[in-house]
Amino acid sequence: MDRPQATWHSVAAGKRQAILEAIPPRWILQEQIPPAEKQPNVTDGYVQQFLTPREIQITEADAVTITQHTTTGSWSALEVTEAFCHRAAIAHQLVNCLLEIFFDEALRSARALDEYYAKHGKPLGPLHGLPVSLKDQFHVQGMETTIGYVGWIGTFEGRKLDRDERTHESELVRELRNLGAVLFCKTSVPTTLMAGETMNNIIGYTWNPKNRHLSAGGSSGGEGALIALHGSPAGFGTDIGGSIRVPSAFNGIYGLRPSAGRMPYEGAANTMDGQNTILSVVGPMATTAPSLKLLFKSVLQQEPWYYDPLVIELPWRDEVELKIGRSLPNLTFAIMHHDGTVQPHPPIRRALAWMDKLLVNQGHKVIEWKPPSHQTSQEIATQVFHSDGGMDIKKHLALSGEEQLPECFLLPSDHAVAAEVADLNVRKREYQKQYMDYWNSTSAATGTGRPVDAFICPACPSVAVRPGHFRYGAYTTFVNVLDYSSAVFPVTAADRIVDKENKLDGFLGEMDKKIQQDYDCNLIHGAPVGLQIVGRRLEEEKVLTILEYFGRLLNESGSESSVVIQEGDTVPSS
Amino acid sequence: MDRPQATWHSVAAGKRQAILEAIPPRWILQEQIPPAEKQPNVTDGYVQQFLTPREIQITEADAVTITQHTTTGSWSALEVTEAFCHRAAIAHQLVNCLLEIFFDEALRSARALDEYYAKHGKPLGPLHGLPVSLKDQFHVQGMETTIGYVGWIGTFEGRKLDRDERTHESELVRELRNLGAVLFCKTSVPTTLMAGETMNNIIGYTWNPKNRHLSAGGSSGGEGALIALHGSPAGFGTDIGGSIRVPSAFNGIYGLRPSAGRMPYEGAANTMDGQNTILSVVGPMATTAPSLKLLFKSVLQQEPWYYDPLVIELPWRDEVELKIGRSLPNLTFAIMHHDGTVQPHPPIRRALAWMDKLLVNQGHKVIEWKPPSHQTSQEIATQVFHSDGGMDIKKHLALSGEEQLPECFLLPSDHAVAAEVADLNVRKREYQKQYMDYWNSTSAATGTGRPVDAFICPACPSVAVRPGHFRYGAYTTFVNVLDYSSAVFPVTAADRIVDKENKLDGFLGEMDKKIQQDYDCNLIHGAPVGLQIVGRRLEEEKVLTILEYFGRLLNESGSESSVVIQEGDTVPSS
Repeated sequence: MDRPQATWHSVAAGKRQAILEAIPPRWILQEQIPPAEKQPNVTDGYVQQFLTPREIQITEADAVTITQHTTTGSWSALEVTEAFCHRAAIAHQLVNCLLEIFFDEALRSARALDEYYAKHGKPLGPLHGLPVSLKDQFHVQGMETTIGYVGWIGTFEGRKLDRDERTHESELVRELRNLGAVLFCKTSVPTTLMAGETMNNIIGYTWNPKNRHLSAGGSSGGEGALIALHGSPAGFGTDIGGSIRVPSAFNGIYGLRPSAGRMPYEGAANTMDGQNTILSVVGPMATTAPSLKLLFKSVLQQEPWYYDPLVIELPWRDEVELKIGRSLPNLTFAIMHHDGTVQPHPPIRRALAWMDKLLVNQGHKVIEWKPPSHQTSQEIATQVFHSDGGMDIKKHLALSGEEQLPECFLLPSDHAVAAEVADLNVRKREYQKQYMDYWNSTSAATGTGRPVDAFICPACPSVAVRPGHFRYGAYTTFVNVLDYSSAVFPVTAADRIVDKENKLDGFLGEMDKKIQQDYDCNLIHGAPVGLQIVGRRLEEEKVLTILEYFGRLLNESGSESSVVIQEGDTVPSS
Repeated sequence: MDRPQATWHSVAAGKRQAILEAIPPRWILQEQIPPAEKQPNVTDGYVQQFLTPREIQITEADAVTITQHTTTGSWSALEVTEAFCHRAAIAHQLVNCLLEIFFDEALRSARALDEYYAKHGKPLGPLHGLPVSLKDQFHVQGMETTIGYVGWIGTFEGRKLDRDERTHESELVRELRNLGAVLFCKTSVPTTLMAGETMNNIIGYTWNPKNRHLSAGGSSGGEGALIALHGSPAGFGTDIGGSIRVPSAFNGIYGLRPSAGRMPYEGAANTMDGQNTILSVVGPMATTAPSLKLLFKSVLQQEPWYYDPLVIELPWRDEVELKIGRSLPNLTFAIMHHDGTVQPHPPIRRALAWMDKLLVNQGHKVIEWKPPSHQTSQEIATQVFHSDGGMDIKKHLALSGEEQLPECFLLPSDHAVAAEVADLNVRKREYQKQYMDYWNSTSAATGTGRPVDAFICPACPSVAVRPGHFRYGAYTTFVNVLDYSSAVFPVTAADRIVDKENKLDGFLGEMDKKIQQDYDCNLIHGAPVGLQIVGRRLEEEKVLTILEYFGRLLNESGSESSVVIQEGDTVPSS
C-alpha cells in the first residue's frame, strides 16, 4: 500500500471513529450485534429491546402525530429529540447509516424550543420539536459535509480553509429551523451520489434494516435505513435518477421526488453541480404519506422562491388537494407492469397485481400504461450523467487519492461539448413532448374523457439487492428525464414461499436475463416491496393526496408494509 | 462574384419577390415612397392617407377594443382582418417588416369565424376575430419559416424534403387558432436572431416607422415596426437578450418578456436550440398594456402546460392581479438610472426622471436601485451565447453560402465543454441568488417592511439606433440571466430641442464614451422613448397590472408616447 492510500485510509478511519464517538457512551450497544445470518431483520422487536416503552411510543409515531403533540405542548421537544437521538444512535450501530451526529446541538435546539413554547404559549412553526434527518449534502452549522468523499473531510466541499467550512447553512436547513424542526444527524450516501447502493470509504456499506444481507439502496440510503428503523420520523433526500425512491422502496418507507423547482436545493453540496439537463431535486422521506405532505407543505410555507432562484413561486395549492380529495372515487389510473426491457421480480409483480385489484375493487378504471420507450430516457440520462467525462468526480476523488467505488454507475467517458449538451436538451424535450402526448391520449381509454390521473409502476425490478447487484435504474430515471412528480409507497414484503417461483415466458434481453438470474426468494425474504406512483410535472399536491389514499387503502386491506409476511402467509385477496 | 453567392442571391431575391406578390395588387402603393430625409415618420397621418376612415378606426383600436367588438358580433372578423391585412401590406412597403404574408388564408379564417359566430351566437374564444402577427420563428401551416436564413427557403428548418415542411404548426399557433385569433403574416427577424437590429439577406433592413433613418430594433424588429404602424394590433415575439423589449422600446409599443416556462415555445424554430442556460422566451407585443394582458391570459387559458413540456402549470393568477390592483397606491418602486457601465442618452434620462416624479407625486416611495453588477450578467450571457463556438449558425449559413451579417453580435469563438456549461449554470445561479438577496434587502428602505414591488430602468441606453449602431444590450440581457418578468412601455419621444444637450460628468468607460459619441439629437428626433419595468421571476400578473397602471398615469399626465413632442415643447412637469 503506497503513501497517499495510507493517508486517506487513516483520515477516513479517524472520521469513522469521530462519528461513533459522537454517540454518548450510554447509547453504545454493549453486546455484540448478531450477524445478518442470525438476525437479518433488526427493525421492530429487535431494535425495540434497547428502548424504553416511552421511547418506543415516541419514535414509532409518525411526523404528523409527533407534531400534533409537540405543537400543542403535550410532548416536549426535548423528550422527543432525545428519544430519536437514542434510536438513531442504535440504528447507526446496526446498519451503518450516519455520516454526521450532532445530538448535543439537537438537544440544545430542543430545549430552546421548549422555552419558546413555555414563553409564548405557541409553537415556533408547524414542525416545532420534530426531529428531521438530512442526507449528507446539506450543510449544517458546526458540521462537516462530505457526500462520502474522504477528500472533503476537514474542508468545505473539498476546499481547505474556506470561510464557509462549518459555518454555511443550506437554505433548506435555514427553513427547517424557522419551522421549528430539530436537526440531529446527517445520513450516509454513496461517494459521488451516483449509485443505487450506499457505500463510501468513510463509514462503509449501509445495510437494509429489514434484511441485513441486502442494500439500503441509494443514494439517499442512509435516510432510507434510518427512517425504516424509526431512528428518524422524516428526513430529506435528493433524487437525480431514483435516489429518493430506490431507498424508499428498498426500506419500505414513503418518499417523494417532486419536480424540479419546488423544494430548495440552494446552498447544498452536489455532484456535477451546474449540470442542468436533468436536475437533482430535494424531497421528503418518511414513515407515512401524511408525513411527506406535512414536510412538503411546511417548507413551501417558508416561500423558498424568495431565497432559492431555482424554486418556482408555487405555494401549496389547497384547491388542488381539495379537488383531488373530493374526486378520489372518480380517479382513473394506469399500471405499467414492465418497461419492455426488464421484468420485475415476483414480489413486485405481486404488488402490482394487488394494487390493480385494490383499485378496480374500489371502482377505479385502471388501464395499461404503454408509453414511449423508457430506453430512450435511459439513453438520454446515461449521456447526461457522463457529459462531463467524469471531471467532477475525478477531481474530488483525487483530493484524497481514493478510487471510484464499484457501486458508482459512472463509466469512463469522454466529455461532451456544448453543442452536444444542447442536443441532449432537445432530445429530452422531444421525449417529454412524446410522453405528454401519450398521457393526453389516454383520455380515449378512461371512460371519463380525461386522461389518467396517475400511473403506477415498479420503482425497481427487484426488492433490495445484495451488495454490488444494483444493475438497473431505469424504473426511476425516466421520471427524472420527464421531470414528473412521483412518490414511492410500501405495499408488502417479499416472502420466500409466496414469491418462490419466478415464472416468466422468457427474457426481454440480456439485462432482463441477468436480473432474473439474480432472483433468490430465500435471500430477499422479508424485504419491503414498494411501488411508484407517477403524476405529471409539478403535480405534487395531487400525487401526495393520492399517496395518502393508497396508504389508507393498503392499510384497510391488511397489507401494511410494516407487517412482514410470515412463511405460509398468502396475500390477502382484496 | 462566385457561383454559390450568385445562387443564394437569386434564391433570396425570389423569396423577396414572392412576399411582395402575396400582396394583392390593389394594395401595392402606386406612388414612390418619399425617402427618409423627406418623410422620416410614416406613422399616423402618413400611413392613414392610404386607408379609409373605417379602416383607420378599426386598425387604430387596440386588441382589447377590437375583441370587445368581434366577440360580441358588432365588428365582423372579416372586416377587421381585411383592414389589418391592408394596413400590414402598406407597412411592409414602408418599412420592410414582413417575411411571410398569407392574407388569403387569414380572410378564409375570418369568414369561418364569422360563420361560427352566426351559427352559435357566441365567439370561438376570447381572441375571436383578432388578427395576430407572429415573429418568423413560429410555424404556420402552408407557410415557410426562415428566421432570415436564405438556406431555409424551401426547407423545414434547413432540412429539405422534410415532412414537416409547410405542414407543422407551432404549439402557440394551435392555441391561437383555438382562441379565435386570425393569423395573417409573419414578421422579419435578423438572421440568427442574435442582433439588436433587424436585417437579413431575404428582405434586407427593417426600418423604424417613427423615424426611417433608424432601426426597428431586434430581433423581434418586424413585430415592433408592424405594430407601431398599426399593421397588427398585437403579436408574439421572442426574447433571449432583449429581443422583445428592444424593438418595443425603439418603436414605442408595449412588450412583455415573461419568465421562462409561461408561454409555449414548443415546435417553434430557434437559434442554438437546446442551449438552456439562458432560455429564449415567447411574449406578446402590442399597442397597449391591456392588450398584452389579454393575449397572455388567453394563451394561459389554453393550458399550454399539457402541450409544452417546458411550460409550468401556472394559470393566470386572478388573486395576484386583484391584490396588486387593490394595493396600487401602496406599491413601492426603485429606479436604476444607469448600470454603472453606460449612461443613457438624454431622452432616456428625461423619461426616467419623469417616471420618478410621476410616481413620487402619486405618493409612491421610489428608491434608487443599486444591484449586484450587471457586468457579471453580461459576461455570463456573452459566454453562454458563444458556448457552441458558433456551430449552429455556421451550419445554417453554410446551407446557402451567405455570410454572417455585421448586425449579429456573435464573434468567432471556441466551443465550451460540458463542464464549462455546468460552470456557467452555477455562475448564473449564484448571480441570481445575489440579486435576489439584494432585492430582499430593499425591505429596509421602502418604509413598508416589504421589498420594492418592481424597478424601472432603461431598456437600452439610446432610443432607436441608426444602422450598425446597436452596441450595448446589457440593459435588457441581465433580465434574461435572472429570468425575471419584465415589460417595456412607451413614455415619450426624443426631441431635438429638449434633448439637445448631453451633459455628463464624464464617461464610465470606453463603451460609455462610444455610445455617448453616437448621440445625435437631430437624427433621433421623434424616436419613441420606452422604459423597462422589472418584476421578480414569474411575476407576470404583477408586472402586467403595474404596466396598465403606468399606462394610465402616463396618459393622464399628457405624455402618451404616440404624441411626438414638437420643437419647443417642454416635458410636462407632473
